[in-house]
Amino acid sequence: MYHAVSTDDLNRPLIERLIQMAETFRTTPRHILRARLQGTLVATLFYEPSTRTRLSFEAAVTRLGGNIVGAENARENSSAKKGESLADVFRVVGAYADAIVIRHQDEKEMALALPYSPVPIINAGAGSGEHPTQSLLDIYTLWKEFGEVDGLSVCMVGDLRFGRTVHSLLRVLSFFQGIQVTLVSPPELALDDPLLEEIKGRGLSVETKERLDDVIGEVDVIYQTRIQRERLPAEIHLSYATEDYRISAQTLERLPSRSRILHPLPRVNEIDPDVDTDERAAYFRQVQNGLFIRMALLDEILGGVLR
Amino acid sequence: MYHAVSTDDLNRPLIERLIQMAETFRTTPRHILRARLQGTLVATLFYEPSTRTRLSFEAAVTRLGGNIVGAENARENSSAKKGESLADVFRVVGAYADAIVIRHQDEKEMALALPYSPVPIINAGAGSGEHPTQSLLDIYTLWKEFGEVDGLSVCMVGDLRFGRTVHSLLRVLSFFQGIQVTLVSPPELALDDPLLEEIKGRGLSVETKERLDDVIGEVDVIYQTRIQRERLPAEIHLSYATEDYRISAQTLERLPSRSRILHPLPRVNEIDPDVDTDERAAYFRQVQNGLFIRMALLDEILGGVLR
Amino acid sequence: MYHAVSTDDLNRPLIERLIQMAETFRTTPRHILRARLQGTLVATLFYEPSTRTRLSFEAAVTRLGGNIVGAENARENSSAKKGESLADVFRVVGAYADAIVIRHQDEKEMALALPYSPVPIINAGAGSGEHPTQSLLDIYTLWKEFGEVDGLSVCMVGDLRFGRTVHSLLRVLSFFQGIQVTLVSPPELALDDPLLEEIKGRGLSVETKERLDDVIGEVDVIYQTRIQRERLPAEIHLSYATEDYRISAQTLERLPSRSRILHPLPRVNEIDPDVDTDERAAYFRQVQNGLFIRMALLDEILGGVLR
Repeated sequence: MYHAVSTDDLNRPLIERLIQMAETFRTTPRHILRARLQGTLVATLFYEPSTRTRLSFEAAVTRLGGNIVGAENARENSSAKKGESLADVFRVVGAYADAIVIRHQDEKEMALALPYSPVPIINAGAGSGEHPTQSLLDIYTLWKEFGEVDGLSVCMVGDLRFGRTVHSLLRVLSFFQGIQVTLVSPPELALDDPLLEEIKGRGLSVETKERLDDVIGEVDVIYQTRIQRERLPAEIHLSYATEDYRISAQTLERLPSRSRILHPLPRVNEIDPDVDTDERAAYFRQVQNGLFIRMALLDEILGGVLR
Repeated sequence: MYHAVSTDDLNRPLIERLIQMAETFRTTPRHILRARLQGTLVATLFYEPSTRTRLSFEAAVTRLGGNIVGAENARENSSAKKGESLADVFRVVGAYADAIVIRHQDEKEMALALPYSPVPIINAGAGSGEHPTQSLLDIYTLWKEFGEVDGLSVCMVGDLRFGRTVHSLLRVLSFFQGIQVTLVSPPELALDDPLLEEIKGRGLSVETKERLDDVIGEVDVIYQTRIQRERLPAEIHLSYATEDYRISAQTLERLPSRSRILHPLPRVNEIDPDVDTDERAAYFRQVQNGLFIRMALLDEILGGVLR
Repeated sequence: MYHAVSTDDLNRPLIERLIQMAETFRTTPRHILRARLQGTLVATLFYEPSTRTRLSFEAAVTRLGGNIVGAENARENSSAKKGESLADVFRVVGAYADAIVIRHQDEKEMALALPYSPVPIINAGAGSGEHPTQSLLDIYTLWKEFGEVDGLSVCMVGDLRFGRTVHSLLRVLSFFQGIQVTLVSPPELALDDPLLEEIKGRGLSVETKERLDDVIGEVDVIYQTRIQRERLPAEIHLSYATEDYRISAQTLERLPSRSRILHPLPRVNEIDPDVDTDERAAYFRQVQNGLFIRMALLDEILGGVLR
């Protein structure tokens, strides 16, 4: 493994190794962790600001003893505004740092620039495209909550059209056996047909429902997402009632006790805060899993760099 | 002590302990200091940008050997814009870091979110509300300049209505004995009545003057503040002459030689640069006191976290 | 040496010492480098955002074991907006950090504030004025590509009027012997007469050409620059054809094989990407030289601070 840009860079043995490593890191004393990336420098370039994801990566690097140089708002504050290509950015920043964690608005530009980078690139979310480390932490959370991923029935709810976490997770789920996927969204935000065909071709069993109520009694996992109004094209007018896709204490009544609710966060009102204290609400545990699996990924990619 | 959010989290024995610790840290060799928070990670979230305060906290963490992940402009660059609650932010960032230093525009939202934080919260200034670490460094400066705080006569000048440093300092001064407070401000910017009543109830002896000239000859401390025009509501039109509240070389002529001038900074023109080199100008010493008392506070709160 | 603000702070023996140190640092194991500035804290204040330059300095500090506190966008996010003077900023930040790396839009304000700084100031580019560390890395690149700097013929191309890298480099070149300078630019962007006279007075042999074609066959060095349209005053209308100043595969055909192309970056379209893989394209090597020479400079200025 060198870059971690798309789900194509992942595979089941790698994911299983990363999960084992994350589990180890979770209980390793901090002073031992700090030896792993001692002397390593990671650059974080966020062309789309995301405090949450950036801090998660920076915390992961720091806990492993590495150092950070970063740009919180790379699009506004850098030479991108002057017309510099991303390939040049990779060459320049790659001359200073041992790896680049990047969130960029244009996945195609990222793919074009990738061959020019002298150092590993880790994708922290690209446009409405992929977000591979989010998928890793989602899968890790499923593994941790259920003991295994094979055979789970996963219901994805909300914006399945523009939400990149859903797209990446569907691809990564296809590395596992016997996964049942149910897609629940307003018609305007349904999964695009090409991606639907792609994941069916990868072996996922997929069905589509219009209402959460239709599946709530029988799923292992509800993967709830936020309708990202800021990403919706102007021509899309949402006609649905938000309530149909909202998870509340009432929803919980029909959800099996073994089931779990995940959410990539941030959440706005698609999960009622009343749900938070329920054992089935896994989304805050999911956050911390993200720290450990990102540590595992960074260690996998950078662990040998200075040896 | 767990959180440091309001002056209610402070008390006299704690303040005295922090001052002693700050004095110790001032002369401790750096390599010994760096062992104290080794392996600790602190997140700095500034919803209202403040380079000065942020750098002070980050320098304090770093000198103690801790690490920083931070957001210089959290309001613009984070999921706050998407409607995420501060409670969720605390839960998420608290999953990565061992403490959160936050400057936020809304003190009520902060108070509501506090119970959800899994890690200590340190308030680095909230709206026009409190700013407890500023008060700590103010008190530390008084102690360092005069040898004790009890019995001082303190004249507060400028914007007493919206200036949060004044509000916090008045409350903290009430932990000490025999303090005489004189309030000098244009009428539009006088201290609000409820706070005035509160601090009288806490035992401070308070009188009000319209002009600095009326008290300049007899005070121990002038605590000068900037009129923060950017915080003034549109309906307030200042009718006063700035000169009446300005400190210049001329003011110094009537100020006793034992007196000291403090200022939370930044200053614009409310203190003439001619004053800077006078021994009575304590405001730049005050800045460095801030570094050491913040180190003491961080050590108090976080010192035992990893032991 | 204390501050590194203008080329007046540089001289030939110092430059040669910094080059030797940079060469040493290039091959020193990282764990040994990290001991050099251990415990040192450097503040980076960028009033004009520049991810590239800031990351280069921050990487240099970090590789030497120092720590960073920084402001990516100091003008927007700091008390500069409230009217604080730069002198006060230096006094305040100098109370926290051991040195300040600053990019500021106004070189005159910087010069006025300098005497008030309690710590060394390193200029990371000031307005359309000087950029001394860029010149250091340019000279280092010439030395590394040619073995020596004396006797080189250097052709500067593009915006010679507003480009601060050109101004600083011309001054620093005057420390060396037998330098032939050719200036190639559209007339509207020619070097200002006073600077032209100054560098002639410093002993540089200077001639001016309108077209790159006129000199391409006989120069050792092409120092290409970007026309910084965002810095051009509104009254300047560029009438020239960009092609006349562009370097492409076709340009290379007439460029001697021993010659080198430098560029301070970012580049937009003034060098065709086809040129990048040619051995004569030195601009990405130049970037990495910047890291090592900045390490040398920081070590020179700060190396003794904590001893």
